[in-house]
Amino acid sequence: MRETYHAELDQLTEELVRLAELVELEMGRATAALLDADLVLAERVIDNESIITDRCQQVDEAAVIVLARQQPVATDLRLIVADLRITADLERMGRLARHLAELVRQRHPTAVVPAALRGAIDRMGQVAARITTKATSALARRDPVIAAEMERDDDEMDELQQDLYWRLLHGDWPDGTEVAMDVGLIGRYYERYADHAVSIAARIAYVVGRRPAEHR
Amino acid sequence: MRETYHAELDQLTEELVRLAELVELEMGRATAALLDADLVLAERVIDNESIITDRCQQVDEAAVIVLARQQPVATDLRLIVADLRITADLERMGRLARHLAELVRQRHPTAVVPAALRGAIDRMGQVAARITTKATSALARRDPVIAAEMERDDDEMDELQQDLYWRLLHGDWPDGTEVAMDVGLIGRYYERYADHAVSIAARIAYVVGRRPAEHR
Repeated sequence: MRETYHAELDQLTEELVRLAELVELEMGRATAALLDADLVLAERVIDNESIITDRCQQVDEAAVIVLARQQPVATDLRLIVADLRITADLERMGRLARHLAELVRQRHPTAVVPAALRGAIDRMGQVAARITTKATSALARRDPVIAAEMERDDDEMDELQQDLYWRLLHGDWPDGTEVAMDVGLIGRYYERYADHAVSIAARIAYVVGRRPAEHR
Repeated sequence: MRETYHAELDQLTEELVRLAELVELEMGRATAALLDADLVLAERVIDNESIITDRCQQVDEAAVIVLARQQPVATDLRLIVADLRITADLERMGRLARHLAELVRQRHPTAVVPAALRGAIDRMGQVAARITTKATSALARRDPVIAAEMERDDDEMDELQQDLYWRLLHGDWPDGTEVAMDVGLIGRYYERYADHAVSIAARIAYVVGRRPAEHR
């Protein structure tokens, strides 16, 4: 019984890791679609969002089954509750990738990101990729140290967003207002994405951090 | 034992309802602060967000205690899991109210919303208030009918946001780009707020809707 139980908890972790990898993949594609005004890639990201949503729901269902069957207490209970919150974060991250792709589709064949801002968006995409890779490792090892590192990536993302806003306000190109609104939104999506990644980290740190207190 | 159990479930519902009322109150204040460029009110909303966050965490803790002590199954288990997701929605809604208030503070003493757009934001604020009132009732009665109605309010919010965007792109005022970016963000916050309200409704409908299937 205990063995099945731990196998089930490990299975949940494994599924979360795979989900995080899928989100990372789609976010990478969304960034590429933005930078290259690639409609085909954008539509793939849009279509694949439902796969992420479905798999998040499957993990939720699995977690609820473990709760019902094994009736865990203390740390294990908190772990599963944290898992339920992490799927919600991953689902939101998948949706943010989709929102980016939708902007590509809306403006196609015009590029949403003007040439002068490609570098800035490219950097935000890189931070997004890095922070998701770390979230995946933090999840796989339930490691609060990696989680703490992610705060720095999040700070970097915030700075990139500030820079982007400044450039949007001071840049000069055709359709300035529309570009500013669209690219402002893009900046906001990347920033929110990083926030959710950090929120995953916080949930990991929370479960791990509480262990000593609960075993007192 | 069963009596305590149902009292605890009722207690959870009651706390969610009070939380939803608190969110409604803060969102109303955020709208008022936006419309009147009221710094004092904005700062109150910003300060009060932590009260919402703390109370969401308290409800989560209480839900986890019920899970651990009562080990509910089937519908009751799903209900508590839904409650954990609803607190996450309410927390996000509180944060969106805070984001609105932060824009007021950032631009003060200049009004974020130019006079020509006050009517549009006023209407979005009204829909936000209405949809939160309905979410509160839907929660209190676990009523999927009210939940379904909320979809219409959400559609109305989406239309208001479309209108707002059109006006931002075609309006003409000083600091046009900055206004468009700020007010574009405001529109987005209201729209996201309504989405989270609808998501609460969906979670209520899900729990209620599954009851027959599970009792088959």
